[in-house]
Amino acid sequence: MIPVGMENARVEDAFWTRYMDVVRDVMIPYQWEVMNDRVEGVEKSHAIANFRIAAGREEGEFYGYRFQDSDAYKWLEAVAYSLMRTPDPALESLADSLIELVGAAQGPDGYLNTFFTIKDADKRWRNERDSHELYVAGHLYEAAAAYFRATGKSAILDIARRNADHVSSIYGREEGKRRGYPGHQVTEMALVSLYEATGETRFLDLARFFVDERGAEPKYFEVEAAARGQEGDKGRFGDRASEYLQAHLPAREQRVAVGHAVRAVYMYSAMADLAAIDGDEGLAAACRALWEDVTRRQMFITGGIGQEEFWEGFSRDYDLPNDMTYNETCASVGLVFWARRMAALELKGDYYDVAEKALYNGVLSGMSLDGKRYFYVNLLESDPKEIAARRDTDYAAPTRQGWFACACCPPNLARLIASLGSYQFSRDDGSIAIHLYSSGEAAIETAGTRVAIAVEGEYPWNESIRVRVDPEAGATFALRARVPGWCESFEASVAGESFRELRDGYLIIDRAWARGDVVELLLRMPVRRMRAHPSVRADAGKVALTRGPVVYCLEEKDNGPELWDIALARESAFEARFEPELLGGVVAIYCDGTRSTGDWEGRLYAEESQERRPVRLKAVPYFAWDNRGLNAMEVWINQR
Amino acid sequence: MIPVGMENARVEDAFWTRYMDVVRDVMIPYQWEVMNDRVEGVEKSHAIANFRIAAGREEGEFYGYRFQDSDAYKWLEAVAYSLMRTPDPALESLADSLIELVGAAQGPDGYLNTFFTIKDADKRWRNERDSHELYVAGHLYEAAAAYFRATGKSAILDIARRNADHVSSIYGREEGKRRGYPGHQVTEMALVSLYEATGETRFLDLARFFVDERGAEPKYFEVEAAARGQEGDKGRFGDRASEYLQAHLPAREQRVAVGHAVRAVYMYSAMADLAAIDGDEGLAAACRALWEDVTRRQMFITGGIGQEEFWEGFSRDYDLPNDMTYNETCASVGLVFWARRMAALELKGDYYDVAEKALYNGVLSGMSLDGKRYFYVNLLESDPKEIAARRDTDYAAPTRQGWFACACCPPNLARLIASLGSYQFSRDDGSIAIHLYSSGEAAIETAGTRVAIAVEGEYPWNESIRVRVDPEAGATFALRARVPGWCESFEASVAGESFRELRDGYLIIDRAWARGDVVELLLRMPVRRMRAHPSVRADAGKVALTRGPVVYCLEEKDNGPELWDIALARESAFEARFEPELLGGVVAIYCDGTRSTGDWEGRLYAEESQERRPVRLKAVPYFAWDNRGLNAMEVWINQR
Repeated sequence: MIPVGMENARVEDAFWTRYMDVVRDVMIPYQWEVMNDRVEGVEKSHAIANFRIAAGREEGEFYGYRFQDSDAYKWLEAVAYSLMRTPDPALESLADSLIELVGAAQGPDGYLNTFFTIKDADKRWRNERDSHELYVAGHLYEAAAAYFRATGKSAILDIARRNADHVSSIYGREEGKRRGYPGHQVTEMALVSLYEATGETRFLDLARFFVDERGAEPKYFEVEAAARGQEGDKGRFGDRASEYLQAHLPAREQRVAVGHAVRAVYMYSAMADLAAIDGDEGLAAACRALWEDVTRRQMFITGGIGQEEFWEGFSRDYDLPNDMTYNETCASVGLVFWARRMAALELKGDYYDVAEKALYNGVLSGMSLDGKRYFYVNLLESDPKEIAARRDTDYAAPTRQGWFACACCPPNLARLIASLGSYQFSRDDGSIAIHLYSSGEAAIETAGTRVAIAVEGEYPWNESIRVRVDPEAGATFALRARVPGWCESFEASVAGESFRELRDGYLIIDRAWARGDVVELLLRMPVRRMRAHPSVRADAGKVALTRGPVVYCLEEKDNGPELWDIALARESAFEARFEPELLGGVVAIYCDGTRSTGDWEGRLYAEESQERRPVRLKAVPYFAWDNRGLNAMEVWINQR
Repeated sequence: MIPVGMENARVEDAFWTRYMDVVRDVMIPYQWEVMNDRVEGVEKSHAIANFRIAAGREEGEFYGYRFQDSDAYKWLEAVAYSLMRTPDPALESLADSLIELVGAAQGPDGYLNTFFTIKDADKRWRNERDSHELYVAGHLYEAAAAYFRATGKSAILDIARRNADHVSSIYGREEGKRRGYPGHQVTEMALVSLYEATGETRFLDLARFFVDERGAEPKYFEVEAAARGQEGDKGRFGDRASEYLQAHLPAREQRVAVGHAVRAVYMYSAMADLAAIDGDEGLAAACRALWEDVTRRQMFITGGIGQEEFWEGFSRDYDLPNDMTYNETCASVGLVFWARRMAALELKGDYYDVAEKALYNGVLSGMSLDGKRYFYVNLLESDPKEIAARRDTDYAAPTRQGWFACACCPPNLARLIASLGSYQFSRDDGSIAIHLYSSGEAAIETAGTRVAIAVEGEYPWNESIRVRVDPEAGATFALRARVPGWCESFEASVAGESFRELRDGYLIIDRAWARGDVVELLLRMPVRRMRAHPSVRADAGKVALTRGPVVYCLEEKDNGPELWDIALARESAFEARFEPELLGGVVAIYCDGTRSTGDWEGRLYAEESQERRPVRLKAVPYFAWDNRGLNAMEVWINQR
């Protein structure tokens, strides 16, 4: 089925609207100021200055990462989605001015990368392994496609088109071109977006080329190293360099997720795109196996992925250490991108189960409730004292930070949250699918008519959801409503008639629809004690509490110091209560537990006493932790 | 009380004799071969060749660490103790030849360090922070004192004396001398040994100078850096350099253990020595506070110390991660050195409680049963698959290794095990103390007579111990027999008379002794479930099994894969059974537990099922793990 885009769908509910407003009102303006180096106490960005220098409008040196330009493109993409939701002529005019500047920085040959233009013009396309040239180009294409769809203006699309044509002149199978591929993937999926925005198949061809070429022998990055006189140089990851960037095997032969997690899921997204567009069974099979591997063996219960700081990526099956993981926010964002494409390839509830898990947990934990602070690394267990004392956790922050020098996560969050409308529905000629239950509405063509569809409820807190289905003309089609994997008991009815038929995780309501039809949907949300697979060492003996799609945690703020000493009572009932004043309005969970007793003065180890003192526990949603001051947190809780 | 030295005491029991034999028959000959570069597949040592080159007997370059000479000295020290136990003319002659070579490598001014003699003669004493010159000298003094006491031969003592006098000409408070101190401590305690062997107080003065000077302002290593034109250079640990090597505060002001663990406990050992010899209350108070800090807040239940690979040392109170610790074997060896000196300073059972804990667990785990393989890092929880996959545990080996380039641990183990006789008894004019219950004997002067004392039993496996007390002439004195901290129930009698009086952890048997008197001692050894302090996050919800001084663990070999899935049954009884064929003869513990059930195929997280399947568990002594092939291990076990 085909996802319904933001032109035709919008999310407007209490939960997400607040975040979308934060993106629009806080993140987008703030990031603009940062990119213009007007925020004190934040590491210099220089992103806009780089464009001005490259355009010859300012004197100066390049500053920042080689992928600094991508910050501007991600900002522009977020602006595009925000404009689709909320027209804002001033913001649009600001974006247009950026686009004009970007165009001025582009070379006559279409080349566009301020680092190389300012600093190292003769080193273009010579070290794609480390240069991020194609990566930056990818973010340009994503921004261009989104901005064009939001505004109908083609200026940025033209810049992207010229750049992609330049890339095509460098990379390809033809004599004289390089048989290379992106050092940091994203270009592939972005070329698909550019194809979708322009309808020009040569961009799809280039995406296909990059995906097909990856992993081929001889390895391009070794060829490239030799060509620049650095034969044998494999870069920072040595013999594991190919795994690091998923070039160890041809895409179709990959079955196990390895290396840098963001690169991986961006690549898998492109593979899923091409599998769907081309009907490519080889790519589809690889996607399915990789999906199994990531989501059944290497994913945290929050939808966090990438268990190792070493290469910001995957480690091995069932290695899921809550206090020593990486779980980059961008990786969970990428997992949502991938899930959306897998669901487009084949409608199975599992894909949006994972997307939903990531969205409400591992993605959202990346930002504070006010949108001003961010986690790059998302731990599931955090002890600020240990993080401060130990050096092996130096990469993790015990509290969200204001801005990062390598600021990939905040704009990635912004562009995902601003585009959530495009994740809610899919369509084909005879059916409409609902994937997520955020309140929102869409206008969708199916069965020869236009259907206005609206989801209403207080998801994820409330079990009751109403779906209004309003065809312009009466029509028979199937509404496919995802019954989340976490939901063991549901009810669905239309005009008093019940529906129970499930197919691949979607409830099928296949009937003749008329104006004013309403689906009453009840997704029961008891608090669940979740266990991890017995092979997961870190979670042995522990449970995580979930309710609906939301994963909970204990914070020191609610439960006192030495959180880990708490044992959840095995027989405790749960009380789930919506608290409008708590963390912007969330359901909190209350239950019984115990804590150690005894005199530990001067003792480090002592014979066990069975005595414990009862305590009342309060769990809050994981995504909302660290919004009330520095404190300890744990998702997985001991029981007794 | 004064420790009884190896001249007058020997250990000969089933448990330790095997290890002592391994030291004598395997480690000492093997290490000699390694130092002579005659073992294939082992990283080159070059230690002996360095001496030959420095002595002008061979052409060549220096090879190895700057502290390579210390391997030879530690070997010589182990040989000395071994010769005290087992005379061996061939070995003694080999040692004499090494001593002759060492003497030939010594400069006319007494300087002795092959690295600087061969390679960098003009850089002597210019970078003590990194050079290990005083460290190497310290190991020379320890070897010299031990070898002199073993053989009465003074050649190596003369070499040491000349070297120490040279050091005195460089370091001191007098005009023109440097107010420095060792970059890597050991010199201080070794100078005390040299004083004890020679009776010459100038060596004690030098030890005192080093201890007193440490931590004074301006910091010597900064003065030294400036003097060699590297002003501001603080070395690898930057602003934490002073903490790394315990020069952040004067010794008397130190209360919290920081930095490199081996350096720390070697320094604390010297502080305890001086506190006892000088009656220095300032040093004694610092020692007591540091002892509290190390053993009550930063020590693993095995007597392992040094929780962080970062600087091979301490981190913070209650940070005791079983799978991400350092626990260098040498640090536990040094903890035993320190404990012995604390007990000499003041007779409290706690000191030998810790020494015993380290000896039977964290020290001994450093070597395989056959004495051929060693752990540098001693984890308390090991998953070979994760260690292989993850990079943040690269410093830890999942199985003991044949030899290390930085081979400090094997010879340190050898010298401690070979000298165990000197840890068993102390004396003063009116009493004899027994600290450890290894079978062994001693001849001790007290109350004006010579007392032959013999401990007999099958410690640590058997609860019954007989102590024969045979004074040459009838005499009244107190026998002080340590009642281990782990022992909650004991019985003691002599000739039918019971004794119960405990003072500072020692049972007092103050009576008139006659030839043939026997103390019947029963130290009950039930299996104990130990818990850690509620602040220890890593052990929350878990217990460790101990019996007597021995800490147990579960190995995959006995309990199957996915050890962590096992939960010990909270109500299980324990069966402790001596198994002569198991791991060289150990008591194994059997008890009941459970494991997960359920169909996990294709699932990573699932709602908890209360169903578990019963399993019978087998625990083996921690020190003996990893002797039956690569497998997983855990000390701390979940319960339910």
